[in-house]
Amino acid sequence: MTEQTQDIQQEHQKFIEDLGDWQRSHTCGQLTLADDTAEVCLMGWVQYRRDHGGLIFVDLRDRDGLTQVVFSPDIAPAAHENAHILRSEYVLAVKGKVRPRPEGMVNSTMVTGEIEVVAYEWKLLNTSKTPPFPIEDRCDAGENLRLAWRYLDLRRPRMQENLRLRHKVAQTIRRYLDEGGFVEVETPVLTKSTPEGARDFLVPSRLNPGEFYALPQSPQLFKQMLMVSGLDRYFQIVRCFRDEDLRADRQPEFTQVDIEMSFVDEEKVMSMAEGLMARVFKEVMGRELSLPFPRMRWDEAMERYGVDKPDTRFGLELKDITEIVRGSGFKLFAQARLVKGMKVPGGESLTRKEIDAFTEFVKIYGAQGLAWIKIKADEWQSPIAKFLSDEERKGIAEALDLQVGDIVFFQAGEPDMVNAALGNLRVHLAGQLKLIPENSFNFLWVTDFPLYEYDQEEKRFVACHHPFTSPASGHLELMSSDPAKARARAYDMVLNGNEVGGGSIRIHSGDVQRRMFEALGFTPEQAEAQFGFLIQALEQGAPPHGGLAFGLDRLVMLLAGASSIRDVIAFPKTQKATCLLTEAPAPVAAKQLRELGLRLREQPAKEGEAKQGGGVAQA
Amino acid sequence: MTEQTQDIQQEHQKFIEDLGDWQRSHTCGQLTLADDTAEVCLMGWVQYRRDHGGLIFVDLRDRDGLTQVVFSPDIAPAAHENAHILRSEYVLAVKGKVRPRPEGMVNSTMVTGEIEVVAYEWKLLNTSKTPPFPIEDRCDAGENLRLAWRYLDLRRPRMQENLRLRHKVAQTIRRYLDEGGFVEVETPVLTKSTPEGARDFLVPSRLNPGEFYALPQSPQLFKQMLMVSGLDRYFQIVRCFRDEDLRADRQPEFTQVDIEMSFVDEEKVMSMAEGLMARVFKEVMGRELSLPFPRMRWDEAMERYGVDKPDTRFGLELKDITEIVRGSGFKLFAQARLVKGMKVPGGESLTRKEIDAFTEFVKIYGAQGLAWIKIKADEWQSPIAKFLSDEERKGIAEALDLQVGDIVFFQAGEPDMVNAALGNLRVHLAGQLKLIPENSFNFLWVTDFPLYEYDQEEKRFVACHHPFTSPASGHLELMSSDPAKARARAYDMVLNGNEVGGGSIRIHSGDVQRRMFEALGFTPEQAEAQFGFLIQALEQGAPPHGGLAFGLDRLVMLLAGASSIRDVIAFPKTQKATCLLTEAPAPVAAKQLRELGLRLREQPAKEGEAKQGGGVAQA
Repeated sequence: MTEQTQDIQQEHQKFIEDLGDWQRSHTCGQLTLADDTAEVCLMGWVQYRRDHGGLIFVDLRDRDGLTQVVFSPDIAPAAHENAHILRSEYVLAVKGKVRPRPEGMVNSTMVTGEIEVVAYEWKLLNTSKTPPFPIEDRCDAGENLRLAWRYLDLRRPRMQENLRLRHKVAQTIRRYLDEGGFVEVETPVLTKSTPEGARDFLVPSRLNPGEFYALPQSPQLFKQMLMVSGLDRYFQIVRCFRDEDLRADRQPEFTQVDIEMSFVDEEKVMSMAEGLMARVFKEVMGRELSLPFPRMRWDEAMERYGVDKPDTRFGLELKDITEIVRGSGFKLFAQARLVKGMKVPGGESLTRKEIDAFTEFVKIYGAQGLAWIKIKADEWQSPIAKFLSDEERKGIAEALDLQVGDIVFFQAGEPDMVNAALGNLRVHLAGQLKLIPENSFNFLWVTDFPLYEYDQEEKRFVACHHPFTSPASGHLELMSSDPAKARARAYDMVLNGNEVGGGSIRIHSGDVQRRMFEALGFTPEQAEAQFGFLIQALEQGAPPHGGLAFGLDRLVMLLAGASSIRDVIAFPKTQKATCLLTEAPAPVAAKQLRELGLRLREQPAKEGEAKQGGGVAQA
Repeated sequence: MTEQTQDIQQEHQKFIEDLGDWQRSHTCGQLTLADDTAEVCLMGWVQYRRDHGGLIFVDLRDRDGLTQVVFSPDIAPAAHENAHILRSEYVLAVKGKVRPRPEGMVNSTMVTGEIEVVAYEWKLLNTSKTPPFPIEDRCDAGENLRLAWRYLDLRRPRMQENLRLRHKVAQTIRRYLDEGGFVEVETPVLTKSTPEGARDFLVPSRLNPGEFYALPQSPQLFKQMLMVSGLDRYFQIVRCFRDEDLRADRQPEFTQVDIEMSFVDEEKVMSMAEGLMARVFKEVMGRELSLPFPRMRWDEAMERYGVDKPDTRFGLELKDITEIVRGSGFKLFAQARLVKGMKVPGGESLTRKEIDAFTEFVKIYGAQGLAWIKIKADEWQSPIAKFLSDEERKGIAEALDLQVGDIVFFQAGEPDMVNAALGNLRVHLAGQLKLIPENSFNFLWVTDFPLYEYDQEEKRFVACHHPFTSPASGHLELMSSDPAKARARAYDMVLNGNEVGGGSIRIHSGDVQRRMFEALGFTPEQAEAQFGFLIQALEQGAPPHGGLAFGLDRLVMLLAGASSIRDVIAFPKTQKATCLLTEAPAPVAAKQLRELGLRLREQPAKEGEAKQGGGVAQA
């Protein structure tokens, strides 16, 4: 803002008046020809002012829309007199009369486009400095600027719609669950740090020096306690916290729709969840979902898609060719534990440069490179084709149903890497090649997850879902005898390749819970110290129970068609977990730390650089 | 629990079965004679088992009620065979047939009292150790025991009802506000520490070493930002945090119904709030409230009741007799800045012991003692009567409208002490003497609060409400010239002597906000450093706005007729801010502190004594 405009805004302060007893009669998105000659009072923000033919026109904006206000020296000279001071984003209250717009000025794209309000009287309620970016949906301001001035960013109609959509989704969920006999119960935010999850945020206790609360990663144990208490059907839309290094589109605090039910099996939980989703789609999006959702075992998802949350809106499935190339002269294939191929129909036209970019992409997932073959009419064009025997070629061609014009990408090595590299490349490619149909919502349940996964770092098995998940029927012995084979009564709801919800049937026996902790490498004493109250509760008449949780941020993002969860969170944090608006976190007074019995390990190097702190992930 | 009962429960484990494909057909509170001969499947907890005349009877309990199940060797011998193992709190699934109870066994006090279910088949879903207290409303277990075994405490019907009532209140509030165009927006829990409030809970930031988030005491600034963003009508049912030394009935985390509106004055906010309360009372309590609520200026409340949240369900008003005793021979009265009397009609029969107890009571509020006079037919019986002249007696008798049989209590000294001592004695006395009508709900608005109060410790004025509260019309100059006289556009909603809600019209001008910080003793630099983003936002087209917040815990407590907010919170904390169930807070691993760049000032003295930690306030 220039000095001059600042001076003008300062000068205009003297025009500011109190609201007094003025009362708004309509919003700026309501008036139509049906209101012709009505006397109205509108309040809002000046979107534009333009002076034309001796008249002054102002588009007045509130969250509902825009209404054209006209100040006329003939009709109301006093109202016209000072209207020239009005600037964009000034706050205005105006009383006037509705009339049809003159011919040629009708705007049929707006609800209020056929009328205007002739101002008889107005009050300037506030001025505004010139905003650092225009208040419009088509705003190319960088995200850091938008976050630092979030209250202006949120003035944009698109962001207002996102907040209202989020509200509507939450209300619809609450209504559905309330009707189903679910009781919303608030669980503590100041709770106990437990291992076996992500890193906790800690809160030092002043009244208990040296001790800490943890912010909950989920209310898992509390909702299980509520089932032991006989509450039967619980839900909560609840804030959860994870102190992770923030990858891509994550937030340190996020919102879950947390649900738990007693005396149920998987089928009951899943059909309740499907009904919830159908209700949300119907009420919020006006769309009918077809129920039940398709289901896929985890094994099959990994086999066909390489990931446990397949996007089924498009093909490009992976094919296992390990056996076909088992004795190949191409050592990389012959010696690999897993070799998979993914065919891109018509992908023969991909350029070397594009293929190089895909090669870089798969390196994120630990791949060394990316083998490929283009199927030409007369040859297989490829750096690796020459290593493959005729029989191997035949086998690959059959397995992948190759046609002239296709390209195949290959990955060979450890199964985790092969699946991750090709599975993620699949989604990446589909986006780049525009293979994903717009405006389609593909739901899928993924079931029969492994109970454990091996943690290479800790050299032990850890729970795949969480350590309260029940093993599959008959898999109790596998927990100790062959953990890798044990399956869990867990299920994830996947929408367009995003995990939007997940849950399980829980362990409700104290004995089984003890065996679970044992399988995870806990001594009985460690289990008792960390989870004693849970085991104790399970021995006091715990009913069979299970549930699931939805990630509200991601769900709303998908419904809003937004590209980041930050666009559906009012005040999100950056990738460095800072708030560019309030400059949190911040240093605190020495007295505050003293009261908490804490000392900093080293003085913070930085001072007052919070405003720059932390860029935003590109996701 | 004896060794023997533990052995039995252990022995019974072998009877436990999986739920399998059994599906509950009804709850335990549904079946009536209309269901005669229906085949049903119930699941729940064994309340009692009794064996009678060769039959085994079980009262099966779930959150909806109790149903009598009978195991008969004649009708279903297999079902009867092992039913003797059933113990209280075992979890049972039973299939059977509904039939009328035999004559003489009908229990008309229960919904299901006319029927019983004859068991054909059953499954033991879980055993239970003997609970440390019986699962009944009439439970005399100490509160610490109840909190340590909270999941059992919550099994009691009364506690289940409290949780469901709370849910219903919250749902009703959300529906009302949604219908009124309010949008629920979630604001951050990890935010910035600000001065001018209670003590913040802090959360160390790992990604920004040496810096801290604070947990919000309320979302005040965020909701104001949302008004600047044009959201117009905001609400949130939201957790808030205060690290206070917990007096009586307070919790470190509590829930607010937080509301804000743009383009409104006090009237709009208050009538919205009255409508909300009327809706809650109608839908939850089935009671019609009479609107609008009465209003009282703060001055009058202090004058007549000594407190700013008068309980108007009973009389016992205070009378100022300062002028009457100005020249009294009783120096204590003559020299006091304020002398007030409170008459208790018919209180002449209070014993010396009772009066002594009241004297102890007022000492909490800084009183040195408690003067009193009993009005006998022939004399004023009192230790102080002899110091009072006839004229003074006459003045007092007139001011307080004294009758034979009354007692009057007096307090003299600094106004704050006099009002606090007599005002609180008034409520205490009314409770003791059972002067408070049961089942009555008296609402009252208290308005025109002072803008500031003088903080003796800090030797400066601090905001009475908070520093974002607008001064009354025309009181802008008083903010600097005579702060003690400045009044605020603030209002509290009082219910039966409890502040259930409070709010204000906010400052929406950057200039006024700067003057407010100046009046509070901030330098411009301090104001900028702490609240720069607020002032900046107010200069970007902030609309006039205001709102209020309700304390949900206290409101639900009053609706439930509970005596403590802990009875309407699922997992409350003790007065030492500990959770006796999970044993939070707790020491954390050295690695966790290292990651946060923190050191403890001293090793905590206590070790593993959390279970005893912190008694519960008697409130």
